[in-house]
Amino acid sequence: MAKEESPTKSPAKAELVKLGQQVVTDIDKGRNPKIELSVRGLSNVQFDTKSKTLILGEKTAQRFFFNVAHSKKFLQTIEVAAICKSLLDVAKHASLRDVFYMAKRTIPGTKVNLVDDQKESDKAIEDLELITNFPREQLHVNANKMGSVAGKVIIEDSGDTIDWSKLGSGGWSIPSNVEDITFKKVNAEYVIYMEKAAVWERLHEDRFWEKHNCIIMSSQGQTTRGIRRLLQRLSKEHKLPIFVLADGDVWGWYIYSVIKYGSITLAHMAEEMAIPTVKFLGVTCDDIVNYDLKKHFIKLTEQDLSRMKQMQQYEWFAKNKDWQRQFKMMKEFGAKVEIQALSARGITFISDKYLPEKIKKKEWLD
Amino acid sequence: MAKEESPTKSPAKAELVKLGQQVVTDIDKGRNPKIELSVRGLSNVQFDTKSKTLILGEKTAQRFFFNVAHSKKFLQTIEVAAICKSLLDVAKHASLRDVFYMAKRTIPGTKVNLVDDQKESDKAIEDLELITNFPREQLHVNANKMGSVAGKVIIEDSGDTIDWSKLGSGGWSIPSNVEDITFKKVNAEYVIYMEKAAVWERLHEDRFWEKHNCIIMSSQGQTTRGIRRLLQRLSKEHKLPIFVLADGDVWGWYIYSVIKYGSITLAHMAEEMAIPTVKFLGVTCDDIVNYDLKKHFIKLTEQDLSRMKQMQQYEWFAKNKDWQRQFKMMKEFGAKVEIQALSARGITFISDKYLPEKIKKKEWLD
Repeated sequence: MAKEESPTKSPAKAELVKLGQQVVTDIDKGRNPKIELSVRGLSNVQFDTKSKTLILGEKTAQRFFFNVAHSKKFLQTIEVAAICKSLLDVAKHASLRDVFYMAKRTIPGTKVNLVDDQKESDKAIEDLELITNFPREQLHVNANKMGSVAGKVIIEDSGDTIDWSKLGSGGWSIPSNVEDITFKKVNAEYVIYMEKAAVWERLHEDRFWEKHNCIIMSSQGQTTRGIRRLLQRLSKEHKLPIFVLADGDVWGWYIYSVIKYGSITLAHMAEEMAIPTVKFLGVTCDDIVNYDLKKHFIKLTEQDLSRMKQMQQYEWFAKNKDWQRQFKMMKEFGAKVEIQALSARGITFISDKYLPEKIKKKEWLD
Repeated sequence: MAKEESPTKSPAKAELVKLGQQVVTDIDKGRNPKIELSVRGLSNVQFDTKSKTLILGEKTAQRFFFNVAHSKKFLQTIEVAAICKSLLDVAKHASLRDVFYMAKRTIPGTKVNLVDDQKESDKAIEDLELITNFPREQLHVNANKMGSVAGKVIIEDSGDTIDWSKLGSGGWSIPSNVEDITFKKVNAEYVIYMEKAAVWERLHEDRFWEKHNCIIMSSQGQTTRGIRRLLQRLSKEHKLPIFVLADGDVWGWYIYSVIKYGSITLAHMAEEMAIPTVKFLGVTCDDIVNYDLKKHFIKLTEQDLSRMKQMQQYEWFAKNKDWQRQFKMMKEFGAKVEIQALSARGITFISDKYLPEKIKKKEWLD
């Protein structure tokens, strides 16, 4: 996908203008204005075995202005398109919440609000991602900001040259939108993405990225779109292997699954978001055995068990013997283990032994 | 409080060693080993009208090794003290969760675990904060990592020189522990701390800190101890006014309250954490009127109302006419307003008009 060149002639804006022109043409010719777009939702989501990602199927739907069931959604999509165009015009970015407030007003001559709930403007933005084929970041609508990164990498962003290896104990704060970052120098053999910021601080204090020539990245709680796109760009543009490091439980494993295969709600953005080459580095059930972590078992809850059952049946896990083995082992354990349990072996055990050994022996799951 | 000088001769470590020596002396002299410390909890927390912070009272308690009710807590405190000393010895930091796993083991010859739940090791760390009079960051136990900062500030941290004005769209990622940062150059007239990362990205894209010569700082969801200490150091060491920017609701107002006065759970750390000079910049009920935000009212929930009632009665709010007026207005509105509602007035309205006008007119609450 082409990168945005300048605020005034971005390809994303051209798509928004095209949408507007189609509607105007419909009106001029006396036709009922319509928008055509792919159907979202489970009925039209499939696991593409070739690209190994969750993608949208072929089903499309038409939305008409003169149709009582469609007209409000039609208006919402057009209004949000106008908001995105206005953001691109002034080269500013907005959050999803901002867009909601920018769209929220009473339709003149009525008592009807254009949007009553942020879900409606969010849906309109998803519509526009489908219609324009650009992720919302390129329509200048940002996701949440979270996370830190360190490594021997130099980037350019907003006119600044930033060296990820020279940012003290904090690291670079990952923005919600990484579309316009330019990689100037990437001196790394792989990337480790971890769920927990505390683990990142552990590896960072131990200068793991320096000793092992890699990039370390984390968030706190959620893998934001900014992080996923940053991982994807490092994977695609620099061919770096991406490893996921998370708790030894189904929730940690699902973090890996979403990064690798995509998710149902973002199936229309698979190409921009999913990273099929991602590996799960740990914590696996084998690690629990090999690194003597059984004494730190936490009993599986009902919730863990039912989530495990669901996940085992997902097509990409169901056909994967290695993962089925992991699910089976965890079920036999009746227990899960947190990654921080490794600290019981010594505060730098994860940096000095666990990770180097796992990487050397190629003990990861695909 | 003295700053840590080197891993081998930190004053925090000296306090830990002193604690150990006292216990050894008790044993040598055939006395029942004891630890003396202030009582925590509501019964011993008071609002100090002089320092204007929540502090601990005079009540102390003694904890004996040979006392069935005390001995486990006694052991936990000593064990965690030993863990902290070992961290200081090797100049490494651990998270609260790490410390839990480092302490978690079965007491030899028994079936009793030294700690069964992280709450126990957390409490032991709080004990040590009281005993040593050092915040846990200086005992090398870190809090959560979260948040970003930008401004015309140059710091030194972990051997790197970092310019907060040259970090692209992301900013510097605030570490969990800011005790060892050195401020080399601080070119700012004030600091704005905001609750929401999306608002920070708004002000950062608009280069608000550059135009108005200030520092902008945010987290996402929680004001971590790292952020509070960073704000406090900028307030104390550089005499910068600190402004809080949050939603126009009791939860946003409480964020301000905690930063300013401290909190019940951290009353023993008031000196290190509370910042009595902090001002609340917005969103106030007057802003709702003055900036035409009533159309973005969100109805107060039962939860909002009961929290408001509690907060109105807190000593520091109860005696404050300006805040009582705010509570009264919000109750009359029966509604709250989110800060992002300002985006309805235009995407850069907050940067171009709202904030500059409020600061110029000194429209903040104390």
